[in-house]
Amino acid sequence: MRPAVSSFATSAEAWIVSVHDAITAFFVDADRGGRFHEERWERSGGGGGVSRLMANGATFEKAGVNRSAVTGALEPGLAARLALQEAPPQDARFFATGVSVVAHPESPMVPTVHLNVRYFEVTTADGNVLDAWYGGGTDLTPTYPYPEDAAHFHRTLADLCERHNPDYYTRFRAWCDRYFRNTHRGGEARGVGGIFFDHLRPSIGDHDLLHQFVDEVGRVLPHAYGPLVERRRSIPYHAEERQLQLYRRGRYAEFNLLHDRGTAFGLHSGARAESVLMSLPPLASWGTEPAREAGSLAAKLEAMLVPQDWVGMASLAGTAS
Amino acid sequence: MRPAVSSFATSAEAWIVSVHDAITAFFVDADRGGRFHEERWERSGGGGGVSRLMANGATFEKAGVNRSAVTGALEPGLAARLALQEAPPQDARFFATGVSVVAHPESPMVPTVHLNVRYFEVTTADGNVLDAWYGGGTDLTPTYPYPEDAAHFHRTLADLCERHNPDYYTRFRAWCDRYFRNTHRGGEARGVGGIFFDHLRPSIGDHDLLHQFVDEVGRVLPHAYGPLVERRRSIPYHAEERQLQLYRRGRYAEFNLLHDRGTAFGLHSGARAESVLMSLPPLASWGTEPAREAGSLAAKLEAMLVPQDWVGMASLAGTAS
Repeated sequence: MRPAVSSFATSAEAWIVSVHDAITAFFVDADRGGRFHEERWERSGGGGGVSRLMANGATFEKAGVNRSAVTGALEPGLAARLALQEAPPQDARFFATGVSVVAHPESPMVPTVHLNVRYFEVTTADGNVLDAWYGGGTDLTPTYPYPEDAAHFHRTLADLCERHNPDYYTRFRAWCDRYFRNTHRGGEARGVGGIFFDHLRPSIGDHDLLHQFVDEVGRVLPHAYGPLVERRRSIPYHAEERQLQLYRRGRYAEFNLLHDRGTAFGLHSGARAESVLMSLPPLASWGTEPAREAGSLAAKLEAMLVPQDWVGMASLAGTAS
Repeated sequence: MRPAVSSFATSAEAWIVSVHDAITAFFVDADRGGRFHEERWERSGGGGGVSRLMANGATFEKAGVNRSAVTGALEPGLAARLALQEAPPQDARFFATGVSVVAHPESPMVPTVHLNVRYFEVTTADGNVLDAWYGGGTDLTPTYPYPEDAAHFHRTLADLCERHNPDYYTRFRAWCDRYFRNTHRGGEARGVGGIFFDHLRPSIGDHDLLHQFVDEVGRVLPHAYGPLVERRRSIPYHAEERQLQLYRRGRYAEFNLLHDRGTAFGLHSGARAESVLMSLPPLASWGTEPAREAGSLAAKLEAMLVPQDWVGMASLAGTAS
């Protein structure tokens, strides 16, 4: 039996508003010209969200930065999706708040990025907290195979993690590699990974420390991803790279619709479908397969999609430069 | 308890080969220039299939005409997907053979079409048939809102059904309307429907009649769909129609990945993912929403997507012309 924890719902909701605004500001800055269109929605069962969508920006063909805070009865179908340690009582309720971000750049030279942080509580009908946890992470999906971009992204995440817990990066990188895989496509990774964590439960006395870690993850894009946008946005590209990008976006859509637990939870919990599915790419192809001969762009990219030690490579790159 | 039926597996497999070839010939003819690329695959658990893909044809941007015949242990996860009336014994096996077709024309003036016919047997380990049934159907997904095309498609199916059973068309049209809906998008229909049926069990003495009905469904495209291709293929179109087509193809992909039982069964039964997912569109958009003001193309199309009596309309159109 877990010790009682007090509800963090009100603070968590304000925290998510702040992270949402910070991420929005980052993308406005990084895009250099595009604007977000904002829509607010309410959920009939309780709560709602704010969806911000940038379409056809100067850099981002589509970027969605959404937040939500929803509450309701924890019905058995929803409870099953949460993989709880203990079955909740029949009249249990849930509270969930989070930010979810997916940015699809127009240029195949700039990688796609995803980030999510969330806080979850299961309570009794009269508000006693039965369980509470954080989840989140961020991962990178390149088209053009720049190993140094994957290395920078991972090194930034490893540094962040190491400031909090020496085990976090190794655990959460492996978790990410396990999670973002298209099992129906022979286990192929969606991208080059990053970190992923779920059900991180604050123990008595360490809620602040855990919260601080997740907050830093929510604010890591300017450091982990911003330099990649700057470095790649002006590089010319050709039809071959764009075709490969559209083809890989098909795999991205497959993962999100077939496997992603967040998408399934959102669609089944009554969140706004347009907001839950904002992660889907602006344009995707299931047309002709790309050429895969040795040395081809697709072959180089697929070699990068095999989980590997990007941080070790980053150290090597640092030594060499 | 059902009476024993003898296995139809060998005959069914030969029948499916014949339907597969007939449908291939129809699309070669209808495309006027495109060719199919054929791939054969084997399933490790037993059986395999033949996938024929036309990419960038003269009319069809992508057309997949696949057949398969697979057999194996009816594991609990698979059995659950079949919604069987009675729980099968632990050592039960299954045999499934079918043809599946999805054709995405390049022109938004020509509708997308889907057709599937299949035969299924559940047997004991030593081959006694415990249950056997047919499934199938065909449905139309237009972009450009031509009501007379939906009416022709439905009238052809209604005529076919009425030659076999006065209840078939009404039942199977309603089943199709219930099945091809994006429940996560407020129940919006994938297209203008057609017919859909599953678990049609041959009773003693009427296997031949039922088989003949399903065989005719498998060969209906030249009559139900061919005239629409002829009528619409040369009509000029603009960026607005193409954009709406790409946007609607996004909905098509959502249905197939989130809801389609055949896709889920295929991916879970060990069929080749590339073949199961050949239904996905060559290019699809989740970009900017189309304009929906009264009188717009999208508004007219969405009005057509509300299930309605297309056969009654066909009779009216027949009277007026």
